[in-house]
Amino acid sequence: MEFDDEISRRNLIKGAAGVIGVAALTAGGLGFISKAEAAKKTSAQKSSATLPWPYKKFTAAEIKEAGNIAHDNWFKGFCSYATLSGMVEILRRKVGEPYTSFPMELTTFAHGGTAGWGGTCGTLIGGGVAASLVAGPKIGEEINNEVISYYATTALPIFVPDHPKAQIKSQNTSDSPLCHLSVGKWMKKEGVGFLSPQQMERCARLSADMSMKTIELLNLWADGKFKPTTKAPFMANQIPSQNDCTECHGSNIPQTSGPFGTGLSLLEKGH
Amino acid sequence: MEFDDEISRRNLIKGAAGVIGVAALTAGGLGFISKAEAAKKTSAQKSSATLPWPYKKFTAAEIKEAGNIAHDNWFKGFCSYATLSGMVEILRRKVGEPYTSFPMELTTFAHGGTAGWGGTCGTLIGGGVAASLVAGPKIGEEINNEVISYYATTALPIFVPDHPKAQIKSQNTSDSPLCHLSVGKWMKKEGVGFLSPQQMERCARLSADMSMKTIELLNLWADGKFKPTTKAPFMANQIPSQNDCTECHGSNIPQTSGPFGTGLSLLEKGH
Repeated sequence: MEFDDEISRRNLIKGAAGVIGVAALTAGGLGFISKAEAAKKTSAQKSSATLPWPYKKFTAAEIKEAGNIAHDNWFKGFCSYATLSGMVEILRRKVGEPYTSFPMELTTFAHGGTAGWGGTCGTLIGGGVAASLVAGPKIGEEINNEVISYYATTALPIFVPDHPKAQIKSQNTSDSPLCHLSVGKWMKKEGVGFLSPQQMERCARLSADMSMKTIELLNLWADGKFKPTTKAPFMANQIPSQNDCTECHGSNIPQTSGPFGTGLSLLEKGH
Repeated sequence: MEFDDEISRRNLIKGAAGVIGVAALTAGGLGFISKAEAAKKTSAQKSSATLPWPYKKFTAAEIKEAGNIAHDNWFKGFCSYATLSGMVEILRRKVGEPYTSFPMELTTFAHGGTAGWGGTCGTLIGGGVAASLVAGPKIGEEINNEVISYYATTALPIFVPDHPKAQIKSQNTSDSPLCHLSVGKWMKKEGVGFLSPQQMERCARLSADMSMKTIELLNLWADGKFKPTTKAPFMANQIPSQNDCTECHGSNIPQTSGPFGTGLSLLEKGH
């Protein structure tokens, strides 16, 4: 495996860290590592395993750049990857490690509401990871909760990228964090199907919106000005849930265009 | 910031990597780094940013240990953290880096269907990250898809931990990857409310089940024997969704016990 050498070297370093004045010959052959160096490395390993990681506030221009990166990266790895990479690519430049070593593809699977199952929108998973890396798991979740609330109550997408792949005309409020409802309602409004150029452009812009919103809240938090405005809904409902039951349970539901529904043909019937 | 020193040192190393025969004095003061060492480090940084990471197959005893870790860690960081940490804690011991430096709390926010919103069950997010780290984003998603299918079609929980925090009597099939449906139906069957000792124990055991199932499939994949058996549902339905529409849309729905419903009182009425 490509990591074997690095692992052997690090194990050597760990072993050396407790021995005063020892210079350990690395597996690489020629390098000498002092005890001070070894101790520093061990402490850095512990640190990058512990959140939060360092953050430097984004300028307005950098937030817009994150939006463009997220939009463009949707076409490389879909929504969750896009939203996460918008922030991480810029932090690699602004901060460096540990973002440089961070595997941005680790939530790519979350696209389409988790491997295409229509659950939580992948932008909210990528955005939640981004917020957690920077602000730690507790504040990261509070920020993610605000982003979800914004996602569910705002007519989206808003961001207009520098390099759109398609023209779209509709914005829609999802009233839900679920991919299935969010993209379903928007496709109905736009009059397009899944994997149409318009649907892909919409989801790419929405990734930009969630990446940018997450960064805006992280900027507020970095200034000591972030205040949660909404409670996680499970506190109100005594079960994990969104607050508007009829978005799933009732007649106000998206139709599928495939074998399990006749979404597009229903457009003409006014459903 | 605690990372400043490490970052300065790494920048020095990066700068030195292109210069033949140069020994760079690190920010730590006393350490000398050879060019070979510097080149190795730069390549390691690139490598840990790129998936997959190295994997060593789990024994049956290690899979059970991962289940116990996941169960116990639920009470430290809930479902997504629990499922991910079950695998990562053992890979830290078996493989070392880059798992040792990996921030296991980065998906803690995904509990309760993402910050408590009742979307995708957090065990499937933690499990998806675990699969992606080991098998990369493409195979990781295929494995996650199988795990979701298993989650939605199996009477759970199955795992019995070494140190249960409560006794539970029910297993239930969720017919959905959504937290809201999965925990809602189980609570109805068990006759308990949210945040009861029984509900927490159930979700802890379910985290163990998903951690172990993910590892079993990763073991198969490591042997070249993993074959996807199900397609991601968006391919069948032409919209991200689960396959059984009536699990959300119809009368077969979980009631909340809070202000938005009267779940527990409905138990007597046979709903």
